[in-house]
Amino acid sequence: MRRLTGCRRFKFPGIKISLYLAVSCAMLFQGAFAQDQDAEVLRSIYTASLTDGKAYDWLNHLSNQIGGRLSGSVQAQQAVDYTKKELEELGLDRVWLQPVMVPKWVRGTAEFAYIESEPGITNNVPVCALGGSVATPAGGLKAGVVEVQGVEDLPELGRDAIEGKIVFYNRPMDPALINTFQSYSGCVDQRYSGAAEAAKYGAVGVIVRSMNLRLDDFPHTGSMSYGELTLQERIPAAAISTNGAELLSTTLTLNPEIRFYFRQSCRQLPDVESYNVIGEIRGSEFPDEVILVGGHLDSWDLGDGSHDDGAGCVQSMDVLRLLKLTGYRPKRTIRVVLFMNEENGLRGGRKYAEVASQKNERHLFALESDAGGFTPRGFSFDCSDAAFERILHWKPLFEPYLVHQFVRGGSGADIGPLKSEDLVLSGLRPDSQRYFDYHHAENDTFEAVNRRELELGAAAMAGLVYLVDKYGFTPVQQPIKGR
Amino acid sequence: MRRLTGCRRFKFPGIKISLYLAVSCAMLFQGAFAQDQDAEVLRSIYTASLTDGKAYDWLNHLSNQIGGRLSGSVQAQQAVDYTKKELEELGLDRVWLQPVMVPKWVRGTAEFAYIESEPGITNNVPVCALGGSVATPAGGLKAGVVEVQGVEDLPELGRDAIEGKIVFYNRPMDPALINTFQSYSGCVDQRYSGAAEAAKYGAVGVIVRSMNLRLDDFPHTGSMSYGELTLQERIPAAAISTNGAELLSTTLTLNPEIRFYFRQSCRQLPDVESYNVIGEIRGSEFPDEVILVGGHLDSWDLGDGSHDDGAGCVQSMDVLRLLKLTGYRPKRTIRVVLFMNEENGLRGGRKYAEVASQKNERHLFALESDAGGFTPRGFSFDCSDAAFERILHWKPLFEPYLVHQFVRGGSGADIGPLKSEDLVLSGLRPDSQRYFDYHHAENDTFEAVNRRELELGAAAMAGLVYLVDKYGFTPVQQPIKGR
Repeated sequence: MRRLTGCRRFKFPGIKISLYLAVSCAMLFQGAFAQDQDAEVLRSIYTASLTDGKAYDWLNHLSNQIGGRLSGSVQAQQAVDYTKKELEELGLDRVWLQPVMVPKWVRGTAEFAYIESEPGITNNVPVCALGGSVATPAGGLKAGVVEVQGVEDLPELGRDAIEGKIVFYNRPMDPALINTFQSYSGCVDQRYSGAAEAAKYGAVGVIVRSMNLRLDDFPHTGSMSYGELTLQERIPAAAISTNGAELLSTTLTLNPEIRFYFRQSCRQLPDVESYNVIGEIRGSEFPDEVILVGGHLDSWDLGDGSHDDGAGCVQSMDVLRLLKLTGYRPKRTIRVVLFMNEENGLRGGRKYAEVASQKNERHLFALESDAGGFTPRGFSFDCSDAAFERILHWKPLFEPYLVHQFVRGGSGADIGPLKSEDLVLSGLRPDSQRYFDYHHAENDTFEAVNRRELELGAAAMAGLVYLVDKYGFTPVQQPIKGR
Repeated sequence: MRRLTGCRRFKFPGIKISLYLAVSCAMLFQGAFAQDQDAEVLRSIYTASLTDGKAYDWLNHLSNQIGGRLSGSVQAQQAVDYTKKELEELGLDRVWLQPVMVPKWVRGTAEFAYIESEPGITNNVPVCALGGSVATPAGGLKAGVVEVQGVEDLPELGRDAIEGKIVFYNRPMDPALINTFQSYSGCVDQRYSGAAEAAKYGAVGVIVRSMNLRLDDFPHTGSMSYGELTLQERIPAAAISTNGAELLSTTLTLNPEIRFYFRQSCRQLPDVESYNVIGEIRGSEFPDEVILVGGHLDSWDLGDGSHDDGAGCVQSMDVLRLLKLTGYRPKRTIRVVLFMNEENGLRGGRKYAEVASQKNERHLFALESDAGGFTPRGFSFDCSDAAFERILHWKPLFEPYLVHQFVRGGSGADIGPLKSEDLVLSGLRPDSQRYFDYHHAENDTFEAVNRRELELGAAAMAGLVYLVDKYGFTPVQQPIKGR
């Protein structure tokens, strides 16, 4: 019943206010009136997003018509074409593709694994190859298992205990932390460098407990690195679902002699050309100052990359659209960048920073959304004390929207390479409780995203971009005259 | 793989701290040390909830083994028996049932409805009887339709336009409001008194757009009242899904002469006996001062009542358990009350207040969770200025848990009848974005509840109960000696 969706839109137009805003935005001075006026602009942005947002429809297409968008895949190219076309339809001042060579890793046929508790007695368990892993031999790999709680355990166990075995990394994410990204950080070394470390002790493969706080049957993929290992030294690495990890651990407790079998046919192909997708509204007063908002267009291949990071892409696209809808005319250049290859290479982020540096572009602010399309709780800022102090003055404007967290901290992987002294990097901080239920897994699909939560994130981002554009990071005690 | 769930529990025991707490809790004085100590108690409560909570398992049983618990139903009685048994297993000082007569409304056979755009050309649409509605005639009811945006439209239309017709209330919830409960409040009069009003103008039935911000196919039931209408004057009322409402509205625009058919066989039976389920830990110093925490055990019948209000019940039960787990010995009596019949009568809440008044019980604080098992954002307080000022001093303790909202406002329906001058009423405020996707509909099931979000709510509630128990509402400038 697609046509009818429009009815909801019609009943709450958020656009009529544009003339008023165009007029009132001309009056720029500091003080209570400016705050009132900013509050009105934020209100109009939120209303536009919640009644007339496009993020959800775009995400529907990215998720359900295109699907997982692993770098170098047909789907990644379809996503480039689709988002470029959609940005062009927004009537921006410029939309273009920025070429970048990306790695192309392919999963091959579906992985298969079982626990062999006695010869001939097996329990299948859900696994998936980690991104960047080598394949097992064509017939699979079967070996005894050593369970560890992290790479720190390997030296103590030593080569004798590990050689010829599969190392099973089973340290779970800590459920007691409130910020689930902290729990993730405390575990992800097992996935990223577990194989490289285990190989040094003669392991023949590694199985890693999925980075998931829930007990379920979805294996979660993600990037890994072999570090300095030569091609010959590399051993296959797979993630096992949390339920599978519990079963394997229990079975090992009952009988340490059990064997584990897994088969995967993933491989690394030569790099291929892909693109960052970029669009911008040119600034009316300071066109050479760039405010960037973005997410990454690539995703893992198991699900549809709806939260990671389709959500961040469509929110970023809608930031420009919402600003246009409310009739605000930016003074600085507002640029949306959909980065390619965040998941397994960060080539898009690096290429963007490289080209920006070559062109001597001045970036004032870069905001990334790459933590899921959940209810926004705040922003993190990677910036100077002075800039952060300026930013804190805007915090009360977000209070009516329950956006409370304005904290120092990491921003986003793609914008990281841009880092410089006078650039403010920022990350949207959505509620993190559900993120790792879906992260890099088959269930990261459109259904897992709530429309309003997604739209509230786009509105929060647009609100912040508006304030940065209007005021820059000029200390607040000085009267603001145009910048 | 149920047995294995225990493994997660084993790895992060939140209980070992109890001895330390028992010792340190003995040292009660105001100031930085007390704040540090309170911070530690809150940390231990959160850890216990996130690593060793029982709320989710209880909710699983309530939702999946029992299901919807409409007052007077077999399931409502099963829920009484089950929660009483579970409370008894917690080793509380007292667990009992409080008898209360409740209305018994039954839905009968599944409702059926269609839009007849031309004689013989029909489109089925999802509807459900509103709670308390009368049935249609056995063969159903077919009539022309008048669409309105609210009861305010009726006088203008007048009897000529309405008589013999079905009134279709189609004012949607306002998506621009951030607090979705406000949007709900702005619409729910259509459901509650739409039939009573329309009947006065000779309408033969009413169809009400579901109180849902999403466009989907679930009709949402809920309570309604016929006000002063006699039995003969009552007309049947049903909710239609939001997609159905859009279709009906569009069809009406194309042809105002279309007819609508619906059939429902619901009816009101005589009142039956049911129970509030109550358990308490007796206070060590002030046993006569009661701190109440609760939710309502009854639910609508379409789904499993998982968010509304299974979540609030199991969170309230876990508040007592978490306090015990952390080794805290309450000074005041901490009482959990699972109220019966919030949805269609509030008899449980009224009975509880009546008995409390008869017994001259002194209630100091009553906290209800009845807004879904989502990430907690804060609390609302219905209390004196002095008490609120005291409460605000506790706010920083909740900062690490992203519980930011401490606001004046409504608390919960069940605890409302207790209201008195020196009682502080409070409501948990979870994130409200997804609530009305599920509220009173078939999809309010266990799967819609995220374990961590539910557990964070229980922890926030236990933290607040701990602080109220420890300090009462004594103004903060006075040294606290025992109370």
